[in-house]
Amino acid sequence: MPLLSLRYLVQRLEDKVGEAVRLLRDELGDDKVITDPNVVMLYSREPDGLAHQANAVVFPSTPDEVSRVVATSYSYEVPIYPQGSSSSLSGNAVPLKGGLVLSLERMSSILDVSLADSVADVEPGVRIDDLNVELSKVGYMFPVDPASQAVATVGGAINNGAGGMRGAKYGTMRDWVNGLEVVLADESGTRLWLGCRTVKCREGYDLVRLIVGSEGTLAVVTRAALRIAPLPEKVVTALAFFDDIGSLMKAYMAIKTSRVQPYIAEFMDAPTVRLASQAVSLPFEASSNMFLVSLESTPESSERHLRWLEGVMRSSGARNVYTADNDKDAEPLYQLRRSLFPAQVNMFRRPGRPFQLLIEDIVVPPSRVPEAIRELRALDDKYGLTSSLGGHIGDGNLHPAIGFDPTDPESTKVALQWFDDVVDIALRLGGAVSAEHGIGVIKREALRRAVGDRQLELMRSIKAAFDPRGILNPGKLF
Amino acid sequence: MPLLSLRYLVQRLEDKVGEAVRLLRDELGDDKVITDPNVVMLYSREPDGLAHQANAVVFPSTPDEVSRVVATSYSYEVPIYPQGSSSSLSGNAVPLKGGLVLSLERMSSILDVSLADSVADVEPGVRIDDLNVELSKVGYMFPVDPASQAVATVGGAINNGAGGMRGAKYGTMRDWVNGLEVVLADESGTRLWLGCRTVKCREGYDLVRLIVGSEGTLAVVTRAALRIAPLPEKVVTALAFFDDIGSLMKAYMAIKTSRVQPYIAEFMDAPTVRLASQAVSLPFEASSNMFLVSLESTPESSERHLRWLEGVMRSSGARNVYTADNDKDAEPLYQLRRSLFPAQVNMFRRPGRPFQLLIEDIVVPPSRVPEAIRELRALDDKYGLTSSLGGHIGDGNLHPAIGFDPTDPESTKVALQWFDDVVDIALRLGGAVSAEHGIGVIKREALRRAVGDRQLELMRSIKAAFDPRGILNPGKLF
Repeated sequence: MPLLSLRYLVQRLEDKVGEAVRLLRDELGDDKVITDPNVVMLYSREPDGLAHQANAVVFPSTPDEVSRVVATSYSYEVPIYPQGSSSSLSGNAVPLKGGLVLSLERMSSILDVSLADSVADVEPGVRIDDLNVELSKVGYMFPVDPASQAVATVGGAINNGAGGMRGAKYGTMRDWVNGLEVVLADESGTRLWLGCRTVKCREGYDLVRLIVGSEGTLAVVTRAALRIAPLPEKVVTALAFFDDIGSLMKAYMAIKTSRVQPYIAEFMDAPTVRLASQAVSLPFEASSNMFLVSLESTPESSERHLRWLEGVMRSSGARNVYTADNDKDAEPLYQLRRSLFPAQVNMFRRPGRPFQLLIEDIVVPPSRVPEAIRELRALDDKYGLTSSLGGHIGDGNLHPAIGFDPTDPESTKVALQWFDDVVDIALRLGGAVSAEHGIGVIKREALRRAVGDRQLELMRSIKAAFDPRGILNPGKLF
Repeated sequence: MPLLSLRYLVQRLEDKVGEAVRLLRDELGDDKVITDPNVVMLYSREPDGLAHQANAVVFPSTPDEVSRVVATSYSYEVPIYPQGSSSSLSGNAVPLKGGLVLSLERMSSILDVSLADSVADVEPGVRIDDLNVELSKVGYMFPVDPASQAVATVGGAINNGAGGMRGAKYGTMRDWVNGLEVVLADESGTRLWLGCRTVKCREGYDLVRLIVGSEGTLAVVTRAALRIAPLPEKVVTALAFFDDIGSLMKAYMAIKTSRVQPYIAEFMDAPTVRLASQAVSLPFEASSNMFLVSLESTPESSERHLRWLEGVMRSSGARNVYTADNDKDAEPLYQLRRSLFPAQVNMFRRPGRPFQLLIEDIVVPPSRVPEAIRELRALDDKYGLTSSLGGHIGDGNLHPAIGFDPTDPESTKVALQWFDDVVDIALRLGGAVSAEHGIGVIKREALRRAVGDRQLELMRSIKAAFDPRGILNPGKLF
């Protein structure tokens, strides 16, 4: 495209954004429409280092205000980027093409919790941790627990189709959203209730699950009826260290083929364990491959379950096994796994050099995890780098990670080649290019490779039906 | 439309069907394309009495043959009706507009069961019961158990978004399908793999759950990767009878607010219990409102759980409580609930008169079940009829039923008015028009009332994207 017409387009967008901002200031008030570039920058970046400056951030506090923002954006054809806490890791919320960040942080009320209905009605800005604090008071939980749950919001988790440590047993967001209120990208910002308050719900096509995982590209979520579950009576935990991955996988298979569905089954490989253990003070030796398993149990059965779990670990060749039959004792056993993200940051940071963390999020059928690990490790040799490796082994979700210098073309090139190779491994082993982080910006090409043009064509038709002017989170997925 | 052009259209369809049938006979062989009207009639009716004669039944035995059937139907614009065992209850599979019934009954292999991956790969014609027999040999189950599971097929259950007795804890089909192979309605009958083998899967929009519950209107399922779960270590069961519904609901609420998620929670009201108990020989007195609850437990905890459950029933006002701590003893306790459908048939059949059973399938938030029951009973007075009432109380799913004489205009009129009123009750109490039977033919207007025109418009756009010529199960949903 000639430079002049590109400049014209940019100028035209800025004019339109300017008009939209003026109109929204009139309608919502100055405190809800922020254009200060420093504030806007805070809302324009992700923890993975991806950033792109938006023109303004809008903070609606009611569904009706969301309607007005969307309607205005629609009529001026201004892009909007729905945003929770912006803790996503694939560029899912980055305002790639300028326009308005639509922050849902001022819509953060837990509206109702009904144990009889097993439902929590919440606004999208509620943090998952805050919801779980409230639910734990009545013995319930919201089981989807992304590692970022301290900041991650319900709305972000819905749009991102998030998973978490309990995914092996409890699945992901798609299994825990009964109904959604959304605002559509049309001239009046139509508010629609999709799905039901009940789990069972057969009302035509399942538009709820079309929104879950759509990364903000189809509609703006303004309210959710979430399914909740009772906390288990008892949870028992074993943390084991294995000198070789093969023995660890043997233990994993023994558990899976014994009619036991782990509540949590987490894994970190030896180099990552060594690094993570330096970041925290642990009451045990941590140097080899880590396998952390929790099982749901009952007070009367916990001893048997725990002895069995310990036995599986030892007979599979564990070097050390540490166990806990209550939450307090289990806490230190989880510390190592919880320090995975900071450990990865430490592992790759070089003093005085720009640095970006690239966390992969592939998933393979659990039976293929040993091959996946072998092939991922072989990439280290191929590219002369040391990756970190951990993940939710119970559901085959691996998070290999590397760091690179985004200002150095050679470092960036190697990182992107590694990234492509990791995706290849996932697809070759019958897995998927993303388990829980989504496509965002960084996996658009990987998505095309995974699903092919015909399937993308169907997805594009759906996008066009929901968002005919393409104003919702443009540049993501496709 | 003038009669002549209607006749012309009918003739034109028959010509096209004739050509399609000849072509398919050449391609698939005579034994896979049946036009004998007696056989075709067998595949053109549902247990609810709805029927409409198709022109032929096609029995492909491979995905490739399904492709050829769909491609042929596409090019001749001949309607096709994907069909499992045709045990649906809302006219979901009836060949409403003539054309070809596409029976999947010859694709009924369990292709693979992997405990490590918690996945069963199956063809669509596999019966759910047969799958569960295989899985139980290795201590696993497929938890979605519609009442028709003895005949219901996996493919039918997927298309119908089926639920079942274990729905209160395990949800419905949408929670248990990881991936699907489908055939698209285009000129080559494109085969596409949607979703993943793993539970975690983020590859753009969730097309798997768009197919689940789409009632065969979007694509033809040729293979499914189903998530499976270990059988519980132990299940304890209590069957209680309550003179009044209020006490029964008190027991229900006590369970729900005690951090207990019933494995099964079923209900039948007094008149239905009396009738059902005549149909089977029971080792206990059955005359008042029935509440049947099973809980997952462990060998060490089963006594405590069972005592607790019995205590809740008694302190809420149960007249009789019968308990079982193993499958064998639980069997007779389930007999009453299992005889609901034959009891309903018996209840409404009149000797020598044509008779059609109308089974409703509404769902309300469980907290609204007492109101729903009261309002449903009031309809009996309003219309001077006696309905039968039972359902999956754990998830708010009620199945009121009446019988009517479809040859008698007055009887039919009353039945349809009753039907509308039942739908009204569901919507007024914050519920949905269908929980697990789907929309099919009989709830198209109810769907429109429930979701409104704007949402239907979105659904129609999706339909048009998947099935541009409208050949897949026409006349359903919309």
